[in-house]
Amino acid sequence: MSAGESRDTRLVSPEDPALRSWVESANDASGDFPIQNLPYGVVDDGPAVRIGDRVLCLRDALDADLFVKKLASSDEFLMAMDVGWLNGIAELDTAQQTMLRHNIAALLAHGSPARAKVERLLRPAAECEPSVPFVVGDYTDFYASLHHATNVGSMFRPTNPLLPNWKHVPIGYHGRASSLVASGTSIVRPHGQTVSSDEGPPTFGPSKLMDYELEVGFFVGRANELGTTIPIADAWNRIFGFALVNDWSARDIQKWEYQPLGPFLAKNFATTVSPWVVVRDALEPFRVPGPPRSAEDPQTLPYLTDPAGTNLDITLEVLIASVAMREKGMAPTLVSRGSFRDMFWTPAQMLAHHASNGCNMEVGDLLASGTVSGTTKDSRGCLLERTWRGTEPITLGDGSERKFLQDGDEVIMRGFCEAPGRPRIGFGECRGIVLPAR
Amino acid sequence: MSAGESRDTRLVSPEDPALRSWVESANDASGDFPIQNLPYGVVDDGPAVRIGDRVLCLRDALDADLFVKKLASSDEFLMAMDVGWLNGIAELDTAQQTMLRHNIAALLAHGSPARAKVERLLRPAAECEPSVPFVVGDYTDFYASLHHATNVGSMFRPTNPLLPNWKHVPIGYHGRASSLVASGTSIVRPHGQTVSSDEGPPTFGPSKLMDYELEVGFFVGRANELGTTIPIADAWNRIFGFALVNDWSARDIQKWEYQPLGPFLAKNFATTVSPWVVVRDALEPFRVPGPPRSAEDPQTLPYLTDPAGTNLDITLEVLIASVAMREKGMAPTLVSRGSFRDMFWTPAQMLAHHASNGCNMEVGDLLASGTVSGTTKDSRGCLLERTWRGTEPITLGDGSERKFLQDGDEVIMRGFCEAPGRPRIGFGECRGIVLPAR
Repeated sequence: MSAGESRDTRLVSPEDPALRSWVESANDASGDFPIQNLPYGVVDDGPAVRIGDRVLCLRDALDADLFVKKLASSDEFLMAMDVGWLNGIAELDTAQQTMLRHNIAALLAHGSPARAKVERLLRPAAECEPSVPFVVGDYTDFYASLHHATNVGSMFRPTNPLLPNWKHVPIGYHGRASSLVASGTSIVRPHGQTVSSDEGPPTFGPSKLMDYELEVGFFVGRANELGTTIPIADAWNRIFGFALVNDWSARDIQKWEYQPLGPFLAKNFATTVSPWVVVRDALEPFRVPGPPRSAEDPQTLPYLTDPAGTNLDITLEVLIASVAMREKGMAPTLVSRGSFRDMFWTPAQMLAHHASNGCNMEVGDLLASGTVSGTTKDSRGCLLERTWRGTEPITLGDGSERKFLQDGDEVIMRGFCEAPGRPRIGFGECRGIVLPAR
Repeated sequence: MSAGESRDTRLVSPEDPALRSWVESANDASGDFPIQNLPYGVVDDGPAVRIGDRVLCLRDALDADLFVKKLASSDEFLMAMDVGWLNGIAELDTAQQTMLRHNIAALLAHGSPARAKVERLLRPAAECEPSVPFVVGDYTDFYASLHHATNVGSMFRPTNPLLPNWKHVPIGYHGRASSLVASGTSIVRPHGQTVSSDEGPPTFGPSKLMDYELEVGFFVGRANELGTTIPIADAWNRIFGFALVNDWSARDIQKWEYQPLGPFLAKNFATTVSPWVVVRDALEPFRVPGPPRSAEDPQTLPYLTDPAGTNLDITLEVLIASVAMREKGMAPTLVSRGSFRDMFWTPAQMLAHHASNGCNMEVGDLLASGTVSGTTKDSRGCLLERTWRGTEPITLGDGSERKFLQDGDEVIMRGFCEAPGRPRIGFGECRGIVLPAR
């Protein structure tokens, strides 16, 4: 903060781990949304912020004159409030973004003089419908977990699991932006071509091997022009924030179609995005050095060398609830738990690589990490790996077995960061139920 | 036309091959834009139509009260006029689209009573800056030429050129929408990782093997909702129109990065789209039965069986002009000529396949065919094939040889349809000059 801003009593840094909110649910040690988090989302077609089990719509706060003058009189800020997604917020300059975050923290901090005014505006989060938080121009999916790439490679290409390029190139491919859906959207089981022999012939029908992929996504906050690049040292600061992504996958369709141009219909029937975007500032305390490299790993090329380290220690979980479990009111079964810190390629490396050929990244573009898998069986982030292609089924809480997803199964992804002496910073949930094929 | 419309003297069908325009350049037998064509484009951020060497901006025509009442009083039409791209036009229903096309034909037809009014509005096409004509939400690139897939496959995978899936699945992958550029945009040679041995290690630097790919693209005119499909019988009618596409490719980057998830940075640095979208109605006379199949080819699955046949007999050319040639005023050198009629997969098959898993197609989405190559050497649609990976260089008009593109080379693509007793229907040009790496 500049000296001028720090004199403004309506700005409070939420980076102080001791800060508490007058919203009681925000102070729950096992909650995802303390005042240190303040993730952005979209509610009623406008930007909003999450605190505990409550939501503050920023247009409501603007109407109630709750922003400092520097924001309330800024054309950029007023335009951002008029945008039905977070693209306008992400386009604010860094100083304005910080001011907004500190202004919101001031409103919600214990002892805030604005409490009475704000309290009237808060909405129960449970009553707010989740949205895809950005207008996403382009969506790119990476393949950045060494353990995932090695596991899957060994199934699809037994003689050649990890290709020679993998430790040199952050492998990625373009996904489909139109079929990004909000958490809670049900997913129709897709039809497609599948084969019983590697040579065909194929038949066309509902996928039998439907899967999820546990991923972390991030939204671009600052664009680069076509023909220009994003230096690795600048890449972290170009990221607006992070969310959870479920890259639904039809493994039988994928196996038959993916060569030589990559996955297509096996993936583009739906990709679920969690509604709350956790900004970089909230995740700074959980940055870890990295990426992890062993002595045998090749030297990273200079344009990808990330000296600061932008790995993040995010614990990630997948849970499944069958129809029977939901009907009986049973808790979903935890089927995997891993950490984003284990990724071989970092978010900054993915972004710098993406723009290294002059490809223009736009504000709101979504980049996802690819399946997050660790070294242990229970940290594998998709059923293909978790059940080892169905050979080692898992058992759900109702006693039923799963090799792949069945109709009616609900997949729930969670993510959170924990560190001693700090409030937990969570991502909320990314949910979806599989519907029968039409 | 309904009876009511046919009574309206301000509607004329441009499908009549004998119709002539009072715009003299439209009647040039070697021109691309007779009154039977009337392709749409975007000029001054609004919809426009091309006739001969002239352009009519539709807002100008609206302001001059040149549209029939049914259009001029339609909210949908007025909204379409307010959109800065063709998305609004494409969203009109079929009856309105036909009425608009027939209204424009009536304005431009020989003997039109509106001639004096229209003539004042026409702008020289040479003075109109080309635009990408649609807001493209998603761009998908197919691989639909058997000859291209076989040729390239034999270079990248000598032991396994055409994979077992190829004749069953219209292979496609997602491209990058943000880097679609208008004809005439210069293309910066991209940096990337390349290798001298298949196993690496890579170095990072400017691509040495830069190439074009001659493709035909089509824009989606009617959306389907997520989870629903587009039956093959309905697919042709969902296409708004066609344009030329240059899928610029960096072959050395592609070779190293493309496995296992497909091409990425080798392609997404730029894709050029021609400015004039030739609508379905103008191409109907050039539909040919197909797709071509031999007795050994597998039976096409029912969801892809296109009984009507939607192959199009479009002659396609690539020309190259070096810096020296342009400085000397030399004509560009024709380096290939082929036909879109040779494609194994048709536009309707590509669209039906894309939506066969429930993937939602949006109005304005661009689908491109992949490189159009024929059986002969001079019909190969990219330099990789045309020079057989550089082993058979071609000679330009200035005597210089090309294995791949050099800095300063201009690539010009042209497309046109010809048939006895019919005016030629052309696509104009898709141009781009290669700039040195930055």
